Amino acid sequence: MKEIQVVWHKVPDTDCVLSAIIAADYLEKKWYKKATPYIQGELNKETAYLLEQLNINIPETKTSFPEGTNICLVDHNEEFQTLDNLKELNVEWVIDHHKMKFETPTPLNMRVEPICSTGSILYKMYKESGFEISKNIAIMMLACILSDSLLFRSATTTKEDTILAEELKTISWIEDFEAFAMPMFNEKSDLWDMLVEKLIKYDYKEFDLNWTKVWIWTLETTNPWYGLGRKNEILEWLEAIKQKDNLDFIMLSIVDIIWEKNTTIVLDWKDTEILEEVFNCTAENNLADLKNRLSRKKQVVPDLTKYFG
Amino acid sequence: MKEIQVVWHKVPDTDCVLSAIIAADYLEKKWYKKATPYIQGELNKETAYLLEQLNINIPETKTSFPEGTNICLVDHNEEFQTLDNLKELNVEWVIDHHKMKFETPTPLNMRVEPICSTGSILYKMYKESGFEISKNIAIMMLACILSDSLLFRSATTTKEDTILAEELKTISWIEDFEAFAMPMFNEKSDLWDMLVEKLIKYDYKEFDLNWTKVWIWTLETTNPWYGLGRKNEILEWLEAIKQKDNLDFIMLSIVDIIWEKNTTIVLDWKDTEILEEVFNCTAENNLADLKNRLSRKKQVVPDLTKYFG
Repeated sequence: MKEIQVVWHKVPDTDCVLSAIIAADYLEKKWYKKATPYIQGELNKETAYLLEQLNINIPETKTSFPEGTNICLVDHNEEFQTLDNLKELNVEWVIDHHKMKFETPTPLNMRVEPICSTGSILYKMYKESGFEISKNIAIMMLACILSDSLLFRSATTTKEDTILAEELKTISWIEDFEAFAMPMFNEKSDLWDMLVEKLIKYDYKEFDLNWTKVWIWTLETTNPWYGLGRKNEILEWLEAIKQKDNLDFIMLSIVDIIWEKNTTIVLDWKDTEILEEVFNCTAENNLADLKNRLSRKKQVVPDLTKYFG
Repeated sequence: MKEIQVVWHKVPDTDCVLSAIIAADYLEKKWYKKATPYIQGELNKETAYLLEQLNINIPETKTSFPEGTNICLVDHNEEFQTLDNLKELNVEWVIDHHKMKFETPTPLNMRVEPICSTGSILYKMYKESGFEISKNIAIMMLACILSDSLLFRSATTTKEDTILAEELKTISWIEDFEAFAMPMFNEKSDLWDMLVEKLIKYDYKEFDLNWTKVWIWTLETTNPWYGLGRKNEILEWLEAIKQKDNLDFIMLSIVDIIWEKNTTIVLDWKDTEILEEVFNCTAENNLADLKNRLSRKKQVVPDLTKYFG
């Protein structure tokens, strides 16, 4: 019986953090002597709130492991989103629901499905293996689904996610999804006191689209004004980061999860031209209305991929 | 309800052909209106024998599909092993048990496990979904396991494969694995009357190891003399192919599945040097004893990957 380290990506959200904790439980039940979840980046407030509610300690932070360590990647698969020394490690498992850019020297376990949350996939894996699901694990699975689907509002939500969430009602003892999710979303929205430096590190994803280096931020919030009210501060930071990291394109979307609207901050004329062409919109004063594009994965990245492809 | 085309790789063996036929059945049960298996290369004699026994028509050959066609890749994932125009297609499913080198623009379904045969994975998927398994499908699953594991002799065989095969006894009505598999293996071994041109196209795999173009043939046979007796003819062909396709390294392993031995034909001094270093062996008269390395995937490719990596 061997050990495995379960890691999530560098900019963690609720689905990936809770999924890594669930996955560690699953892998120990399955065939590992010990499976331990690790952090790579700072938790957002929604996730921190949930861990506190569930009385779970924040896992240890690690960005690399000794050569040959067995690794399970959760909620991501692309190299630059993960551990610094991935090439030296032995990836035995990938559990994910994103597009693929992945390479290994040996066969491994991969479970990838185009559904809303990694938590949904894990719930299916428990059922398939006939594993018992504790109340706490069920709450975490439900939190993954509600967080990633923004209470079933996001375009990534599938019919299967809603069915799985309904099934989880009984095991989690949570009957009222709205009552459970709104405090989570409010925590996430509480960006007012956050320094812009921190805000900006909050939920970006880097994409390497056909040799083009693209960063896309998404701030999901019940109060978009927390972000929009600090547009100038944010623009300064975007400019500094774009130069420092030599990026080809950046955008920061502020997603209003109550009214289901995406307002995107765009930096310069070059990025504006790209944004307007890709999303068929008009930007004014560095702001563009991307309408109901709530899902970066499904409604933003594919169009940009096509453009840069 | 949409349609999907299920394809296997360019040099088909029993596991990939039967798995594609099984996968088409699974996907139709799952959520596709129509799922059709297609060939990309010529069947080997073992597979042709099994299809005849099972009274299944040989599927149509196709090496490309119209843009945007939904595709399921079975038993492979690397681009050069598959359809000519993969980049234009919509890969919705991958069911495989090999190392990974794969990229998509959008999320998809992937089911990858490091077990012996794709047929084993499919049997698990049927069980997980609660789908009924017909006698014919069970026989095909069993044939996949017995063929890819060389009757549980290959190093790729896992404990799980043997357990799954035992379970399949009841549904397939096949009690005696040896009696079922030996005629299959004998068919595969009947290479005597085969032209070398054909023999050579029989079961090679191309690998792109860190920009190095490597071709590895494996001829599994109950009578290695069929191949070894024509060494000079084979060498001529290897040389022609190496030049034509501008390869960096080639080797042809003749695997004796009764006595579990790998005798490898190597072409020139350059390849011999590499072979001797990688496998810690001595080649004489273009022949090297690679001992019990029955599995290309597990006992040949990883060492070469490390060397070229």
